[in-house]
Amino acid sequence: MQRYKCTISYDGTLFSGYQVQPQKRTVQSEIEEALKKLHKGSPIRITASGRTDAGVHARGQVIHFDSPLHIPEDKWVNALHSLLPDDIAVKKVEKAAPDFHARFDATGKEYRYFVRLSNYKDPFTRHYQFQYGYPLDIKQMKAAADYLVGTHDFTSFCSAKTEVEDRVRTILRVGIEMSREQLMFRFVGDGFLYNMVRILVGTLLETGRGLHQPEDMKTILAGKDRSLAGKTAAAHGLYLWEVFY
Amino acid sequence: MQRYKCTISYDGTLFSGYQVQPQKRTVQSEIEEALKKLHKGSPIRITASGRTDAGVHARGQVIHFDSPLHIPEDKWVNALHSLLPDDIAVKKVEKAAPDFHARFDATGKEYRYFVRLSNYKDPFTRHYQFQYGYPLDIKQMKAAADYLVGTHDFTSFCSAKTEVEDRVRTILRVGIEMSREQLMFRFVGDGFLYNMVRILVGTLLETGRGLHQPEDMKTILAGKDRSLAGKTAAAHGLYLWEVFY
Repeated sequence: MQRYKCTISYDGTLFSGYQVQPQKRTVQSEIEEALKKLHKGSPIRITASGRTDAGVHARGQVIHFDSPLHIPEDKWVNALHSLLPDDIAVKKVEKAAPDFHARFDATGKEYRYFVRLSNYKDPFTRHYQFQYGYPLDIKQMKAAADYLVGTHDFTSFCSAKTEVEDRVRTILRVGIEMSREQLMFRFVGDGFLYNMVRILVGTLLETGRGLHQPEDMKTILAGKDRSLAGKTAAAHGLYLWEVFY
Repeated sequence: MQRYKCTISYDGTLFSGYQVQPQKRTVQSEIEEALKKLHKGSPIRITASGRTDAGVHARGQVIHFDSPLHIPEDKWVNALHSLLPDDIAVKKVEKAAPDFHARFDATGKEYRYFVRLSNYKDPFTRHYQFQYGYPLDIKQMKAAADYLVGTHDFTSFCSAKTEVEDRVRTILRVGIEMSREQLMFRFVGDGFLYNMVRILVGTLLETGRGLHQPEDMKTILAGKDRSLAGKTAAAHGLYLWEVFY
């Protein structure tokens, strides 16, 4: 048995998220189905760095799996491509140590979130950018983002349904870049709670509209209450960009 | 009755082309359906500058229609948006003279064609750029394009099924621009025959690979024989970009 580390990208539009669910088309089930074919019917289980929700995209999701097949690293990509649907691409397959774990060994992640600043519909970006028509004060948003960097209890910025008890996470960087009518958020951190990036984006967008002041972020964090933060931004603007090991 | 000129864009991926066909989802039928709802059940016929094939996109298709409704120009966009599917957007609605005709009054068109130069699958561009993995000599392609500019009989560069008898067209400009792994073709001309842009692109790509020499374009044009030109490039890289009046 050889353990493989595999970097994949996918367009989340037509998936009911990453994780296997009965009767649903998911990223995990499509990849496991392809691996099963490659292994002549033997089921192969994959483990990802984490789940992504329905509609969320990935540029650099990482998974691991074990295989008895002796395929050179560079042949894996083509072998899998011929068996995978068009909305999943394998970017890299590398041999890994037998105890490598895509989830537990991850030391951090980068997520990006794309917003299209317009009141006009655009058929070409409808699944790939969140459309937001309000005028935004980018300086206020950047000032608010500065309060989020560091180690905090992010209870206010995760779904109320989150079952994880330890909600302390470290955000290393929040970048906000504007070019023409596109706004790009970058979040780099040691880990992110359920819906955390989407709630951070929703709150920063509301700050840009003047509904919150930058220093409100301190109060929101301290309150440990989801209802203090802004709306959850739509899934289709979010990309799992990179996983660090 | 007021005649309206309407500029639309659409993502061609999920359409069986522009023109109405029984049992198929087409751009024309979706727009006529929306207009029918807006007119409380009265059918409204639309006329476009020209058809686009299945999978072909439009950034600036132009249509005209007549309506008894007195809606200000700027209200039309929202009125139609609420009734149209997400893959069609109305960019502009303008009052036009009663004899304005989207097809017969067009004096020219611009088409663009996007190629992704890579051997690797990309889930995000699969419907929007044609993937082409061969190394290309851009200089040779530009030299070949120069032979196409001007007034020529383009019989060799249109589908053998073309029923139009007069195949003389004027190409005003062919632009070829490369940025990172994207290649963009721009074609501006007084009119284009069936499949003409896709066959021009296919032939220019083959020239880039060294399968034709630039000066072969002269022979291909003179031969008036479809079999002399290159393959028809895929529909999903093509965009009707603008219609001139």
